[in-house]
Amino acid sequence: MSEFYAPETPSRVKNATGLHLITALTPNGRKAHIYLEELKDAYGLAFTISLIDLDTEEQKKPWFLRLNPNGRIPLLIDNTTTPHPHPVMESSAILLYLYHKVDRAHKFGFADPLLQSQVLQWTAFWAASGQPVQGQWNYFRRREGEGDAAKKRFHDELLRVYHVLDAHLSGRYTASSRAREYLAGPGAGQYTLADINAWAWVRNLRGVGLEEGALARLPALAAWVERVGARGPVQRGALGEGYDEVVHPELVVRT
Amino acid sequence: MSEFYAPETPSRVKNATGLHLITALTPNGRKAHIYLEELKDAYGLAFTISLIDLDTEEQKKPWFLRLNPNGRIPLLIDNTTTPHPHPVMESSAILLYLYHKVDRAHKFGFADPLLQSQVLQWTAFWAASGQPVQGQWNYFRRREGEGDAAKKRFHDELLRVYHVLDAHLSGRYTASSRAREYLAGPGAGQYTLADINAWAWVRNLRGVGLEEGALARLPALAAWVERVGARGPVQRGALGEGYDEVVHPELVVRT
Repeated sequence: MSEFYAPETPSRVKNATGLHLITALTPNGRKAHIYLEELKDAYGLAFTISLIDLDTEEQKKPWFLRLNPNGRIPLLIDNTTTPHPHPVMESSAILLYLYHKVDRAHKFGFADPLLQSQVLQWTAFWAASGQPVQGQWNYFRRREGEGDAAKKRFHDELLRVYHVLDAHLSGRYTASSRAREYLAGPGAGQYTLADINAWAWVRNLRGVGLEEGALARLPALAAWVERVGARGPVQRGALGEGYDEVVHPELVVRT
Repeated sequence: MSEFYAPETPSRVKNATGLHLITALTPNGRKAHIYLEELKDAYGLAFTISLIDLDTEEQKKPWFLRLNPNGRIPLLIDNTTTPHPHPVMESSAILLYLYHKVDRAHKFGFADPLLQSQVLQWTAFWAASGQPVQGQWNYFRRREGEGDAAKKRFHDELLRVYHVLDAHLSGRYTASSRAREYLAGPGAGQYTLADINAWAWVRNLRGVGLEEGALARLPALAAWVERVGARGPVQRGALGEGYDEVVHPELVVRT
């Protein structure tokens, strides 16, 4: 263990057992919270968390970079593996790690490889084409007087990406025109980690700073946001006090 | 079949058998080309391709959107599945589909789930944090007089992402400081689809418009670019004439 963790690694992290998530209340953090909460309800999964103070940039310090050289949360550490704990960076890779390790009955994915391919496709779509765009839009839309070209670019691209999701859910490009309830799976689809992966960002559809008229043209997406958001584990993971440093200051790690 | 493909789907696509890739010579296209070429050498995999004319935006037309509502290449269609062909969008999902379907001996990934988790992490890292940044940098760096805030933002972020890869390959955040040859795997690592996924973009390290001084501080990354680029299948997939519409106009599909 002494080589795996740095000497200055917070003891809360170093002494954790089982699955330990280092996180914060960000969209990517919420992906991991929600799936952990789903797995808790579905399988009785036990896990522990540490909260990072993003303002002090704890995640850019050497103890953290040893676990994730990208210096970002969420970071999952599996303390049950040998010869040393297994760190997992990247929120979509965390979802897939939990899926393969915990979700043995395929409750949030599929045993069938073609259906699971749909899960991977929609997870990759959001991770590569959705969240980077929404993240840049969030950055540039708040800047006055500069970045107008970028503001327009990311506004338009975010709308385009939302329309891809809306079109897919509405079924309007398919031969059957059959509407879907979830992103992956047969027929109307089933709730999977692909929904969790995208919902953690798209949940804020009404607050992301797009025009009312534009939002009105995304009815299938808006209905999906409501549908996924009605789940108890989703509400606990996205908004619950279990991940709030004000409610739980004892979970915060600092060096 | 009549419901799966639209009436106007090009016959080259509609009549394809086996694995068929619809692609173009872009970074994401190259990911798929390279892995297909690797699998051809390793397993004798047979596949066919169609080239899209991106200028006429064939990929935004209804026949294409039915296969990939995101309207982007590359798109893999597996014509061996029942009851209908299986389309795979998103370049990283294509790599994973080919891995699960073809790469039975785990030549470009790992049977061990912890090692395969490393493959997924570095694939997700590049897809979510690398390529969107390099893509935006490519866009803004060519614009005169506008987008200066964006230009600086993506310049700095691209350098940051390259430094994450360089640090990981150099081993400098690890306890052992052991250098790596490839992104995932034990010891110095093994060549996997995670390398293919990132290399298809980072290959252009010297031509991406960063300062010489900055590039000089990325020696481990530059060596990795050379190392991966020395492979025959990589050269065929990235630069080979098999994917060039000028050399092979008969592969181009238009409606």
